[in-house]
Amino acid sequence: MAVYTEVSNNELSAFLTAYDIGTLLSYKGIAEGVENSNFLLHTTGGYFILTLFEKRVNASDLPYFMGLMDHLFRHGVACPEPVHMRTGEILGTLAARPAAIVTFLDGIALSSPTTVQCEALGGGLANLHLAGLEFKGHRTNALTVSDWRPLFDRAGEGIGLIAPGLWQLIEDELGFLENSWPDNLPTGVIHADLFPDNVFFLDDSLAGFIDFYFSCNDILAYDIAICINAWCFDGDEKFCPERSRHLLKGYQNIRSLSNEEAEFLPILIRGAAIRFLLTRAYDWINTPKDAVVTLKKPHEYVNKLKFHQSIANINIYGVRNIEFGVGNGN
Amino acid sequence: MAVYTEVSNNELSAFLTAYDIGTLLSYKGIAEGVENSNFLLHTTGGYFILTLFEKRVNASDLPYFMGLMDHLFRHGVACPEPVHMRTGEILGTLAARPAAIVTFLDGIALSSPTTVQCEALGGGLANLHLAGLEFKGHRTNALTVSDWRPLFDRAGEGIGLIAPGLWQLIEDELGFLENSWPDNLPTGVIHADLFPDNVFFLDDSLAGFIDFYFSCNDILAYDIAICINAWCFDGDEKFCPERSRHLLKGYQNIRSLSNEEAEFLPILIRGAAIRFLLTRAYDWINTPKDAVVTLKKPHEYVNKLKFHQSIANINIYGVRNIEFGVGNGN
Repeated sequence: MAVYTEVSNNELSAFLTAYDIGTLLSYKGIAEGVENSNFLLHTTGGYFILTLFEKRVNASDLPYFMGLMDHLFRHGVACPEPVHMRTGEILGTLAARPAAIVTFLDGIALSSPTTVQCEALGGGLANLHLAGLEFKGHRTNALTVSDWRPLFDRAGEGIGLIAPGLWQLIEDELGFLENSWPDNLPTGVIHADLFPDNVFFLDDSLAGFIDFYFSCNDILAYDIAICINAWCFDGDEKFCPERSRHLLKGYQNIRSLSNEEAEFLPILIRGAAIRFLLTRAYDWINTPKDAVVTLKKPHEYVNKLKFHQSIANINIYGVRNIEFGVGNGN
Repeated sequence: MAVYTEVSNNELSAFLTAYDIGTLLSYKGIAEGVENSNFLLHTTGGYFILTLFEKRVNASDLPYFMGLMDHLFRHGVACPEPVHMRTGEILGTLAARPAAIVTFLDGIALSSPTTVQCEALGGGLANLHLAGLEFKGHRTNALTVSDWRPLFDRAGEGIGLIAPGLWQLIEDELGFLENSWPDNLPTGVIHADLFPDNVFFLDDSLAGFIDFYFSCNDILAYDIAICINAWCFDGDEKFCPERSRHLLKGYQNIRSLSNEEAEFLPILIRGAAIRFLLTRAYDWINTPKDAVVTLKKPHEYVNKLKFHQSIANINIYGVRNIEFGVGNGN
């Protein structure tokens, strides 16, 4: 939540001449997004968001991210619309960084979603998945099951300093997930970071998704698994089955899960928990204590993982229309 | 440049019910101002800025600051308009802090003003001074000549660590200023912090002043002295006489300086230099190195002070219509 790069009036005004959005009336750095610098622009053409991509984003991925947003917007998915330059390009250069402008999207990030809002989220996610099927770009998920052990190894023994027993917990869970991870579920474009701060609402209506900078091609149901972790626990880290049930209901109103997707969902949910546990733990160990960024505590995802490991019956997640077996291999 | 306080959707929506500006569509923390937390609000009634006053602002001063903005706006000074609640109040409480909403003001803070823009600034400042004459509130300047020595004493020997000879430079200058400071120049409301980041322009036109949180009653020409320090040096800290001349020309097109004000201007300019030198030096010494704020280097104002001490002829500042004597007591 920071603005890493200062942009002068003159260089911004020069940058805007490549677009058909009028002249600059105002710009302000905004505290949105963790990885990049964002500015709210007011021009004679309206309100826009300017993003400068900082070094944590791989520049070679940007055509995928911006092309995907463009594709999704044109296919009716609620998200900001990338603004094209007169040349047709979406990506430019400003302050020596890749830069893009998107339309300003109204809406508010929720801190505590209702079941109605979870259902709207599920529906929006299914729309995103369906619209993404026609997208031509491809980006491999750099944080999926095969990437977790290398990340775990790089974090190393520092993991043990976060909490007693954490190293062994992750070691065991990785072994389980590597053996259980499905390899034939439907894939497509996933957002891959659909936390509440990346979803805007207007009252109970989904206003749109933002921040596609982890999006990639992977198992579609894994995106649901990320959402269940991010949306279906309350502020005391207690699981809220009704939120999960409504999220899945909203999703399946648009795109039905196959029996296989539903059966593997608990595995995917545990995978999503360990993915965020690992990146948070890694950042926790490797970020200087005086850095500007606010670190997210890894402990939240330790608790979530332990919950998912403990469930007696996968019906707690609320997948409907399916007969489940007694267990899932663990 | 930071957002110090998080505000939830629910508490902000509840806060807005006291106003007649519609319902919330969006809010984003913005990187504006050093002392307070600021948010851009979009409601069904338009765009606004919400400020939460953090602890560095004395809450008992807020009625003066907000009342002044209200007065100035109603008297045609270009500045944001404080939004009144239905009760008529301007100040409320949000997230356990004093809070106020003002209208969104278009315009851009300049990094390198032209002489035309300096003239517009001078005219706007004179308008502010004239409109302020009718303002009923009173606030003593807490950072004027009598406050500098106590601040210098509190900074103590740490001053010497900033630059060799700096302690003696300030000691000598304070002695000079305490003996030379005028006590019968016209007074009134001054902005007292009119740096380029607090003045918005649209091309060559002054769009408005923001951030009145140092405003107070003091010598009017001292406000000009602050502006000459803040606006009339280039990026290499070289004095730009043409900027100063145009600033004073713009000012005197609206409000003429008396001969006495003009004669004392060099003293006031040296005072303004030491005021910002002292507060920057104090913050430099007393702010932890890992704090979130970006410190302004005191050295800039050391160089400015030395320039002002060195001038051979006060006509370099460009006050017109006046015959100056040979010197000013130093």
